[in-house]
Amino acid sequence: MRGKTEVSLKHPIESRDDLSVVYTPGVGAVSADIGTHTELVWEYTGRGNTVAVVSDGSAVLGLGNLGPEAALPVMEGKCALFKRFANVDAVPIVLSVHEPDEIVAATIAIAPSFGGINLEDIAAPKCFEIEERLKQALSIPVMHDDQHGTAIVVLAGLWNALTVTGKKLEGVHIEVHGAGAAGVAIIRLLALAGARSMSAYDSKGVITKERADLTGEKAALLQSGIVGAEKSADVFIGVSRANTLTPEHIARMNKDPIIFALANPVPEIMPDVALRAGAAVVATGRSDWGNQINNVLAFPGIFRGAMDARLSRITDEMKVRAAAALAALVEKPNADLIIPDVFDERVVPAVAKAVRGS
Amino acid sequence: MRGKTEVSLKHPIESRDDLSVVYTPGVGAVSADIGTHTELVWEYTGRGNTVAVVSDGSAVLGLGNLGPEAALPVMEGKCALFKRFANVDAVPIVLSVHEPDEIVAATIAIAPSFGGINLEDIAAPKCFEIEERLKQALSIPVMHDDQHGTAIVVLAGLWNALTVTGKKLEGVHIEVHGAGAAGVAIIRLLALAGARSMSAYDSKGVITKERADLTGEKAALLQSGIVGAEKSADVFIGVSRANTLTPEHIARMNKDPIIFALANPVPEIMPDVALRAGAAVVATGRSDWGNQINNVLAFPGIFRGAMDARLSRITDEMKVRAAAALAALVEKPNADLIIPDVFDERVVPAVAKAVRGS
Repeated sequence: MRGKTEVSLKHPIESRDDLSVVYTPGVGAVSADIGTHTELVWEYTGRGNTVAVVSDGSAVLGLGNLGPEAALPVMEGKCALFKRFANVDAVPIVLSVHEPDEIVAATIAIAPSFGGINLEDIAAPKCFEIEERLKQALSIPVMHDDQHGTAIVVLAGLWNALTVTGKKLEGVHIEVHGAGAAGVAIIRLLALAGARSMSAYDSKGVITKERADLTGEKAALLQSGIVGAEKSADVFIGVSRANTLTPEHIARMNKDPIIFALANPVPEIMPDVALRAGAAVVATGRSDWGNQINNVLAFPGIFRGAMDARLSRITDEMKVRAAAALAALVEKPNADLIIPDVFDERVVPAVAKAVRGS
Repeated sequence: MRGKTEVSLKHPIESRDDLSVVYTPGVGAVSADIGTHTELVWEYTGRGNTVAVVSDGSAVLGLGNLGPEAALPVMEGKCALFKRFANVDAVPIVLSVHEPDEIVAATIAIAPSFGGINLEDIAAPKCFEIEERLKQALSIPVMHDDQHGTAIVVLAGLWNALTVTGKKLEGVHIEVHGAGAAGVAIIRLLALAGARSMSAYDSKGVITKERADLTGEKAALLQSGIVGAEKSADVFIGVSRANTLTPEHIARMNKDPIIFALANPVPEIMPDVALRAGAAVVATGRSDWGNQINNVLAFPGIFRGAMDARLSRITDEMKVRAAAALAALVEKPNADLIIPDVFDERVVPAVAKAVRGS
């Protein structure tokens, strides 16, 4: 199919009168009003319901740096999900530029058209800098979904998985394998939610003070003391293509290990293998098994709530609240049910409400 | 109304299977293909039917430099017209940047998302430089509609008006009042179509070699000899807010004067006044009178044709052919009918075919 969405008219244009309302001269009065009172743009245009899904194609799914054209079908799909799940009008914007300065400049340039910016499939570590600079520069919500959408759903699922195993986030040791966009955001959000003992692994191994090669986000995680502990783990979270998880590793973990094997499409370990090795709860990113950690549980409601309340920022506190709201939708968590289904109609309203804070 | 268009899904998303086609993992294979063969983006995405309507809000309608937010309702209206008349999916992109370098950079950055770029309501003279640089930089059609859309419809209407008065484009003297985006483009296109005698007026009067203040496009028109003649006129074309046309001026024109009083919403002279003063044919930009010179007769078909044929450029020859096709839709031109109605269903196919050249 050539594209997953199309534009449709909200009102028919069948007469000269229709034309004069939709376009000149009728639109002139509207423009003049907004020219005098800029904030009327939210009343008189579609801006407040429109999100740009922005990517430079430098990290397309798990496929790597394929460029903007190859990123376009992914962004189109994301836009379709925005509409289907949250009635947000989203527009795919793929960029021919790749330097952080250029990506930031282009996104700021087009921002007056949009009520929110969803960054997508931009490679780490530049994704961190780009998101931070855009958040500083713009007064509309900006969120890099590969980071925060994933982190929110992981936190929601983990809370319920811990309930299933009778443990608390504050008391467990968590190992996160993969220190890219998703891994870093997961570690930060878990820390904010109360996790006190975590270790992080990148392609060169565990992230410790002995490593001389660490910069940027990884160094910051170490310096803040969020990661660094090396202990026997209760929770394994895998978000890197490079890793596999062996049954022997699970056997060495603490009692009732929780396994989030989120590499996609091939998880770090198959669920049946993990369960036979002693895992108490297993989640993956796959739609064909239960306990699917899927960003679509988060981003539609996040932007729906932020735009309905015309928030200028999506804060860490909102993300934690969104995760709590998601987790609470599972009334009696069990090993096979730690996270709501993506088609559960309560999800978007609950997440949106959590973001709005009311 | 908050916005004139919305996004709609081309295919329902009601099951996990639907999800896996629209988004991951299904979209992964598509992205991988495009990553290897970039040109597949035209087959596998909506790019080939999608146009960006780009403005910095520096010349919103006739209202001046109101900024991007005030331009947004106009761009939304334009996008609605693109869909209604040519089934083109158009996206309003209003820019927070105003320097030519910045506008060019932002538009190049987002270009991989689009099959064409419609520039709109960007002030002269920077609009000329911006369009030219984008045409050089991009391999998709770029058109500043305030220039070329207007010029195409003026040429079409003028051909028929000349038929009504028994004159030829090659034999008449034309005065163009207003030397901004529309005026300059009209003069150039008329010259290309065969006009041999034209004079141009800006806010300081007639453009002649005696003027020391002329630069850029105006100087170029003089140097090329396209304008400069000062003779009694057969045709008056007004495209500037600053001008009015008096009955006395019409009385001094050659026999059967043709008056295109295109200032909007208040034309340089009212049609009934012009007719009483001796005008043989009068056209305006107004939808509530006959002979309406309206860009919507041109831009939908221009982009429809260019994108259907995947043209990399909209050339001057295509514009002349489009004008001829538009003019030919009026089988028997008379003083009250020199241009097709905007709802005439033959218009877009005829213009698109003329642009494609087949």
